[in-house]
Amino acid sequence: MRFVIDELWPLSELLAYPRYAMHGRETFDAILDQSQKLALEKFAPHNRASDIDEPRFVDGRVHIIPEVKAALDAYADAGFPALLADEAEGGLQLPYTLALLSDAIFCAANVSTIGYALLARGVGNLLKAHGSAEQQHLYCQPLLEGRWLGTMCLSEPQAGSSLADISTRADAIAKPAADGSYRLSGQKMWISGGDHELSENIVHLVLAKIPGGLPGVKGISLFIVPKFRVNDDGSLGARNDVQLAGVNHKLGQRGIVNTFLKFGERGECIGHLVGAPHQGLAQMFHLMNEARIGVGMGAIMQGMAGYQYSLQYAKERRQGRHPEQKDPASPPVALIEHADVKRMLLQQKCYVEGAFALAVYAGTLIDVQLGCENAETRRYAALKLDLLTPVLKAWSGEWCTKANDLAIQVLGGYGYTREYPVEQYWRDNRLNPIHEGANGIQAIDLLGRKATLANGAALVAMLDELRATTAQAAAIAALAEYSEALASSTVLIEQTTRALVTCMAEGRVRLALANASYYLTLVGHAFIAWAWLKQALVAARALPDAADHDREFYEGKLMACRFFFRHELPQIEPLARLLQTLDDSTLAATPGQF
Amino acid sequence: MRFVIDELWPLSELLAYPRYAMHGRETFDAILDQSQKLALEKFAPHNRASDIDEPRFVDGRVHIIPEVKAALDAYADAGFPALLADEAEGGLQLPYTLALLSDAIFCAANVSTIGYALLARGVGNLLKAHGSAEQQHLYCQPLLEGRWLGTMCLSEPQAGSSLADISTRADAIAKPAADGSYRLSGQKMWISGGDHELSENIVHLVLAKIPGGLPGVKGISLFIVPKFRVNDDGSLGARNDVQLAGVNHKLGQRGIVNTFLKFGERGECIGHLVGAPHQGLAQMFHLMNEARIGVGMGAIMQGMAGYQYSLQYAKERRQGRHPEQKDPASPPVALIEHADVKRMLLQQKCYVEGAFALAVYAGTLIDVQLGCENAETRRYAALKLDLLTPVLKAWSGEWCTKANDLAIQVLGGYGYTREYPVEQYWRDNRLNPIHEGANGIQAIDLLGRKATLANGAALVAMLDELRATTAQAAAIAALAEYSEALASSTVLIEQTTRALVTCMAEGRVRLALANASYYLTLVGHAFIAWAWLKQALVAARALPDAADHDREFYEGKLMACRFFFRHELPQIEPLARLLQTLDDSTLAATPGQF
Repeated sequence: MRFVIDELWPLSELLAYPRYAMHGRETFDAILDQSQKLALEKFAPHNRASDIDEPRFVDGRVHIIPEVKAALDAYADAGFPALLADEAEGGLQLPYTLALLSDAIFCAANVSTIGYALLARGVGNLLKAHGSAEQQHLYCQPLLEGRWLGTMCLSEPQAGSSLADISTRADAIAKPAADGSYRLSGQKMWISGGDHELSENIVHLVLAKIPGGLPGVKGISLFIVPKFRVNDDGSLGARNDVQLAGVNHKLGQRGIVNTFLKFGERGECIGHLVGAPHQGLAQMFHLMNEARIGVGMGAIMQGMAGYQYSLQYAKERRQGRHPEQKDPASPPVALIEHADVKRMLLQQKCYVEGAFALAVYAGTLIDVQLGCENAETRRYAALKLDLLTPVLKAWSGEWCTKANDLAIQVLGGYGYTREYPVEQYWRDNRLNPIHEGANGIQAIDLLGRKATLANGAALVAMLDELRATTAQAAAIAALAEYSEALASSTVLIEQTTRALVTCMAEGRVRLALANASYYLTLVGHAFIAWAWLKQALVAARALPDAADHDREFYEGKLMACRFFFRHELPQIEPLARLLQTLDDSTLAATPGQF
Repeated sequence: MRFVIDELWPLSELLAYPRYAMHGRETFDAILDQSQKLALEKFAPHNRASDIDEPRFVDGRVHIIPEVKAALDAYADAGFPALLADEAEGGLQLPYTLALLSDAIFCAANVSTIGYALLARGVGNLLKAHGSAEQQHLYCQPLLEGRWLGTMCLSEPQAGSSLADISTRADAIAKPAADGSYRLSGQKMWISGGDHELSENIVHLVLAKIPGGLPGVKGISLFIVPKFRVNDDGSLGARNDVQLAGVNHKLGQRGIVNTFLKFGERGECIGHLVGAPHQGLAQMFHLMNEARIGVGMGAIMQGMAGYQYSLQYAKERRQGRHPEQKDPASPPVALIEHADVKRMLLQQKCYVEGAFALAVYAGTLIDVQLGCENAETRRYAALKLDLLTPVLKAWSGEWCTKANDLAIQVLGGYGYTREYPVEQYWRDNRLNPIHEGANGIQAIDLLGRKATLANGAALVAMLDELRATTAQAAAIAALAEYSEALASSTVLIEQTTRALVTCMAEGRVRLALANASYYLTLVGHAFIAWAWLKQALVAARALPDAADHDREFYEGKLMACRFFFRHELPQIEPLARLLQTLDDSTLAATPGQF
């Protein structure tokens, strides 16, 4: 982490922005140290306990082990919920990247418990962006203090990923009342943190339709629906009619309660419109996009936790001998001495450290948007971020779950037992390719929308970054092989994108998008390769003057770069070839043929 | 399944062997129908229950939900444990392939519960092959009747996959006694079915060392260690000192108790040597090889169960619209209409139906060995089976677990909950790349031993099969594309094998084996492609005269073949290239670089 924020994407550069000028590098260190300390003391210890003793639905209430509240209270007491908020509002006004790194530390320790706090921060950010002054006054402060928590209520049982269809059956309908508030009725599914007694109040952000609006996504509005109504002076009023109808029993991330909620079925459920009517989806995407970066980072940190655990295990456990050393009298070697175990560790290292570097880069793009004074720079940062978001979310979700799979394999039978943590990382991580927009949807977003964004300017801007790195690496003999390979990958992306965009322009949209998932892997692998070449550049430059104890670290970065370029990156070639042939197998197969 | 045993590898051909001549095709059908009926009635209903309410270790005893014993009793009452045994011993003397198919049906229903019975059958088979007449007399009959169950005791806590090291710390030492029996002492880990009250007795087959023997695997002998000693008249005697020291809490396959056993620590543990001393490993491999085919089939059937469930779900659930049909007033389409969902279903179909065909082929090779009168044919069958075994075990374990991952993704959030069965299939299947020799070990077995077996004759024999199919397919226009691709893959395997074998011959064994896992994927994908081209040949020939209701089935086989050849098979090209460069990254990386 120090390598990434000191050498790869120096966080200190953000101090040049007026927004962050009051901070020093030492503030950043202090925040990260404090995150680490709190994560180890209050979050990590109950990660397994809240998996085994998951939230239970008893007599209409959710029972959660007390360690969860203790951790969240400590988090709030330490001021973490206000990391990002403006100083004027009592926040710390720290860079987004720093908050992302702090989040990452907590995610590695306990992704479920920190989930409550991150959802609440997202709700506060959204209200800050779109809420009225009064709404901000009433809701943001308690969220910033960590006294209240919040949720995002999008999905409905029948609609899943298809938000256009909220209201087709069990609809969320908001009816305007005389006082400007609305009466909501409907059901919401998959609501994380939907009910509990961890906080004084819960602020639900609910997507619903105001009768008379347009059909589909254009008729969706966003409402604040507090669990307890909020009086004008900020005190809590009566219970709103938000009923907990059930909890879902998940495969992983069990510590954060996942609920089925019913609104206004038994009594009056009052909601407050956020901004103008029918802007709900766009507003929610404000939160969703940050959430997607967060999902990517969460996936990376589950992968990182598994990698570190399996690495330690492979160094300590002695078992077996080399193929040519079969003398049973010789002592067994450490697991890490076996080539296939090293292969599994190198894969993990490549996936998690590569994606981590890319995620931190995405974080800095958000800070550029928040703090940079140059409008053109801000515009390009926004474009690159738009393009990166689906890649980070989907690629990290898929490959860092794969990393967890490899961690289990390194531990063998022990890894398959619940006495070791790696199986839980794997289960916890498996949610990430599903939620916040399933990976298949991210792929369509990338190819169908982001690749053509601003006439393709977003993709060009990212590929320009790749080309700049390629040029730098070409000058260093040890990196020339990778420079060449990345240059080829860049060309492969351009060729493939051209073929697919042409196909779309000809009106054959469905055909162009038929293999979008491979396109995401193609782009994702190339971006991760770029992140590795970037790291290798830093390492190659640092090595000649490195202190002895740093040498192996930098050599490890070079070795991982070599492994990714030789073992992993070539996998995109058949994908690119397939994409360019516009193969229609996935369209042509009929349901009856299965 | 009917397609495979009637059209692809006609089981009726086995009736030509004298060993099976007394059977008719209708017997086979009856056995499979009965398997299906019993699996649905007694095994499937408690698959989830025994996952939730897994075996518990209370007061030194294992508590198992009663449905497990009821299922195993019904299985025994119906005569299934004696499917394979000779008629002379009261068995049904049915083909091995048929038993494999029956097992497959039970595995799909409940892999944990059937595990007890399959282990017992393996123990009986091993004693039949290597035990004395007296041992067979005393132990085989109760096993055949399903009154007793059995285990394989190989691993020790400190030794894991490295059997050479059993005895390094917690050793299993067998000391000869005056009566020809041995006294055992030591510990065994990961013993499935190691203790329970499901059967009158448990027959442990234990690997242990007789003092004075050679070090390493050459000093390992095999012992029968019954839980209750067996009197000369077959009645049960005193309790042997086999202590249940603990049960392991697994990620999946929870229904079959997995134990840590201690032998002879508190009292006298009497064991009986099987065959000659120091032959233990070779004898156990008799059982292990069959077990590896069984593991492969188990993996395939978990994949199959997930595929079928997600297919049904995708046909019924309506959600979303096509990219160019965004009119929210139009009804949502079924999930299966989305290209990316079809991609995930096609992948599952390719993996599970491809591997199923290959596994059944392996089964017929065992029957050739058991029943064919031509010695040369038997020899080639044995060679091909030796080569196929690690491929089937490791490839199916990896790719059919991947199939389960895709099944979860098709169901989305629902798939991530324990209210749906797909997450359990995924967890259950995750064991298969680990047990019975971890996949990395299978890869070394394939490249380091099987590829060079009999001077490479085993590999040549299998590649000849591929070439024969290639030639047949070349004559059919619709299959020419695949014929050509399979021919290229065959050449790729030959080139790659030559490069690696040469490297080994030069004494650079560790380098040649450094990327063995990719070699297994290379060979595995090519063999699965062959299994698909075989199926496509049958389908292409059957289509012109097929009845209307069969047409889509055959077309589906052709579509899956197309998908595998276009989307999956090309992934082996970068692997083959990498293998041929003899890349040493996995040797060169040092522990400190991670």
